[in-house]
Amino acid sequence: MKVAMVQNNPVFGEKNENIKELFKLMERGSADIYILQELAYTGYQFRSKSELQELSDTADNETILKFKEKAVQKNSCIIFGFSEMGGDGKIYNSSMLVTPEGKTVIYRKTHLFYKENLFFTPGNSGFIVHEWRGIKIGLAICFDWFFSESFRTLALMGADIIAHCSNLVMPYCQTADYARAIENRIYIATVNRIGAEERTDEKLTFTGQSVLVSPKGDYLIKAPVDETGIFIHEIDTTLSRNKQLNEFNHVLNDRRDLFYKKG
Amino acid sequence: MKVAMVQNNPVFGEKNENIKELFKLMERGSADIYILQELAYTGYQFRSKSELQELSDTADNETILKFKEKAVQKNSCIIFGFSEMGGDGKIYNSSMLVTPEGKTVIYRKTHLFYKENLFFTPGNSGFIVHEWRGIKIGLAICFDWFFSESFRTLALMGADIIAHCSNLVMPYCQTADYARAIENRIYIATVNRIGAEERTDEKLTFTGQSVLVSPKGDYLIKAPVDETGIFIHEIDTTLSRNKQLNEFNHVLNDRRDLFYKKG
Repeated sequence: MKVAMVQNNPVFGEKNENIKELFKLMERGSADIYILQELAYTGYQFRSKSELQELSDTADNETILKFKEKAVQKNSCIIFGFSEMGGDGKIYNSSMLVTPEGKTVIYRKTHLFYKENLFFTPGNSGFIVHEWRGIKIGLAICFDWFFSESFRTLALMGADIIAHCSNLVMPYCQTADYARAIENRIYIATVNRIGAEERTDEKLTFTGQSVLVSPKGDYLIKAPVDETGIFIHEIDTTLSRNKQLNEFNHVLNDRRDLFYKKG
Repeated sequence: MKVAMVQNNPVFGEKNENIKELFKLMERGSADIYILQELAYTGYQFRSKSELQELSDTADNETILKFKEKAVQKNSCIIFGFSEMGGDGKIYNSSMLVTPEGKTVIYRKTHLFYKENLFFTPGNSGFIVHEWRGIKIGLAICFDWFFSESFRTLALMGADIIAHCSNLVMPYCQTADYARAIENRIYIATVNRIGAEERTDEKLTFTGQSVLVSPKGDYLIKAPVDETGIFIHEIDTTLSRNKQLNEFNHVLNDRRDLFYKKG
């Protein structure tokens, strides 16, 4: 099972051009699963809610249809971030998984970062794991990583790999993924964008360096900080399903929930 | 507030000699809080339960008295790991915090590692935070680190620093402490031993390199892999108590417990 991480540098607001560019990058390599970044084709730094609204897509409009067609054409599963205009009239920072069989799954970001709180509604989908052709794909978006409970939840739900669509501006995640991977014995694919946006009085620089980390903490992919590209690696679910650290310790079953504080 | 981490290489079974050596290392530097390793003066690789029993101490016997006297003499708080003969006749892998005011607190390791399961009883104390002279000290022992819930629990209980007494043989913890520190915005003092033991057909090599990590993920101390010593650094509770990552995000309050799986 081959996973591709597509690292891009979208131009704010240029949806069609950005999608073309993403699809061009996808053509450069062949994989079973393609993971794209958070808000993959809109850009990130919105000036107003109305601007965001204009760039948002409903779950089944013609923008989304392009990804569905691409999944069929590539006979692959595609996961990408987008601004979702919900049926409830609210806008979510979401990711969608589309399969060549026509299945779609939407995850709505649980933990909004920084000024996203001004524009988006906090996700209400809960974490989602979707099994496709024998691999269990967990969905998470950017800042979700910061809370260990997010990837832990996906691991407890059986995820082999976390499709972690990101627009990271803090310097922590790519390093911290090491802990997240080994503590859960899962693959983590943090797909990040490069470049910068300065549409307000604040400049946001995205940290690039998309990483694929193995259940043993090996960095199978570490993409460049400032280049777009497609990065592909094989993953092996026998590794992510063996939670036995040694003959006495199981990384999930050894948890002693009784002693953990939740509040 | 100064924290000292004492990295030692005990000789198996030589309790008195090991304590002398620990105290000698402690004399090399002055600090408010001294943190020693897991099973600080017994050694680690027990051959049998009866051997372990002989090397165990009750909470108030004359071995423990030495540490209490040392705390008074140094006017410092000392945290050290020991094999505790409980009042219930069971043996726990514990750490004790002793203060110059005569207070003692015992934490019993929640998550036993590997063959410890053959000898020790799993801890039943739950996680503990003790406030001393204005600093909140959380207690954890070695493998507890592997479960993100452990340090999260201590952070939710208000810990500024985690006194993490360890005998690490796996290569992960010192690197993973980075994630544990930033996700909770706390200091982590992983105090590890050096050297090796080969009292059975299995050789155990301890990884040394005790680390003190700041709430921002800076490695304030990174001790050598194979040298004993005392390593001292100032800590600042204003850093560990500021959980505001930016004006919108709080590292603990932004948790969305409703969406976290516990089972």
